[in-house]
Amino acid sequence: MITETQFQKELENLKENLLKMATMVEEAIRDSVQSLVKRDSELAQKVFQMEDQINQMDLIIDEMCLKLLALRQPMAIDLRFITSAMKIVTDLERMGDQAVNIAERAISLNQEPQLKPYIDIPRMAEITQSMVKEVLDAFVNRDSKLARSVCEKDDLVDGLNDQVVRELLTYMMSDPKTIPRAVHLMIVARCLERIADHATNIAEDVIFMVDALVIKHHADVRKEGS
Amino acid sequence: MITETQFQKELENLKENLLKMATMVEEAIRDSVQSLVKRDSELAQKVFQMEDQINQMDLIIDEMCLKLLALRQPMAIDLRFITSAMKIVTDLERMGDQAVNIAERAISLNQEPQLKPYIDIPRMAEITQSMVKEVLDAFVNRDSKLARSVCEKDDLVDGLNDQVVRELLTYMMSDPKTIPRAVHLMIVARCLERIADHATNIAEDVIFMVDALVIKHHADVRKEGS
Repeated sequence: MITETQFQKELENLKENLLKMATMVEEAIRDSVQSLVKRDSELAQKVFQMEDQINQMDLIIDEMCLKLLALRQPMAIDLRFITSAMKIVTDLERMGDQAVNIAERAISLNQEPQLKPYIDIPRMAEITQSMVKEVLDAFVNRDSKLARSVCEKDDLVDGLNDQVVRELLTYMMSDPKTIPRAVHLMIVARCLERIADHATNIAEDVIFMVDALVIKHHADVRKEGS
Repeated sequence: MITETQFQKELENLKENLLKMATMVEEAIRDSVQSLVKRDSELAQKVFQMEDQINQMDLIIDEMCLKLLALRQPMAIDLRFITSAMKIVTDLERMGDQAVNIAERAISLNQEPQLKPYIDIPRMAEITQSMVKEVLDAFVNRDSKLARSVCEKDDLVDGLNDQVVRELLTYMMSDPKTIPRAVHLMIVARCLERIADHATNIAEDVIFMVDALVIKHHADVRKEGS
């Protein structure tokens, strides 16, 4: 049995914390959209509390990375892993902010009659949650294939967003009274699209880290940034 | 006269490149909004080229930071400066993406009659450009006071965005034919608001770095994330 070095243990600890933070973000996305679908504004409140915890994790992991850089002075792949982790927590933290935006819109929307059955938005939420989970798995396992599949899912989310916008425009044009609610819903869809963009940004970093390929700025994969 | 060490020279070089990248982003924001205001779709094309250059700078600076971390193994404030620089280039790169979003909307809008005179949107662009410039100055000069003033400007931009949304809702409700153009304009305003959010994120990092204060997650300063 190979004895783990202290440094390897610290890296493992870092990975666990990243996965933990990603799970919190997934939960925040799910609850924010469920607060809309189930018209449950209390659940929206829970999202605000979760965001506080996500912000705490951001600080904890950032500090952990700085300590690793200062004390262990890692080289090559480990160095890039740690600096990537620092960027990833920023993306995760901002996904949490988007979940809060969704929860806020849900609270407004829940005070008025429901404009339409929500079908595409929960579907978007489901895909973005899976993107968050998979991209973090791809990162900690240095799995560029999985990261590439996350980039592909971004197209699905963009397609659903376009569909939501088109449908809501139809509502707005046929009945102006629906406009304020339709605008709220457009913003909810856009928040989800933005979460997917964050996940895609992370996926591009993973591919870059693993394959040392500058896929990030190639037009074939890159979508609109966040 | 004090002799500069090689490390200090490299740090100076990093700062110069960060400022250069920020200037490119400022220009992209200005040109994207000018392409709308002047109905000049050629100028919008220029924004796409600038974004390519901004993306190149992202990669160059990121690599520069990795080399500094690997070869110089900086401690304390220098370590945090370099890891912050790596996060800042990500924010700058995403601001470039937002400028591209604006340019795309400008091209669509320029093909139809102008819905209304553009007043608040150019004002928003002006403030966000100044935020980008000032927050980078604050970062390279470790000036937390200037960073705080950037955070305050974010409220102005948010206020203007709310105003734009309210005005456009009025147009949409009184004449459904205006809805597609109004939605484009709402998204332009939201892109600018998002650029301001990125600048505010950087400002919070600067304050954190300089004052070692966790202002980032304090409710009094923090606004909705990006």
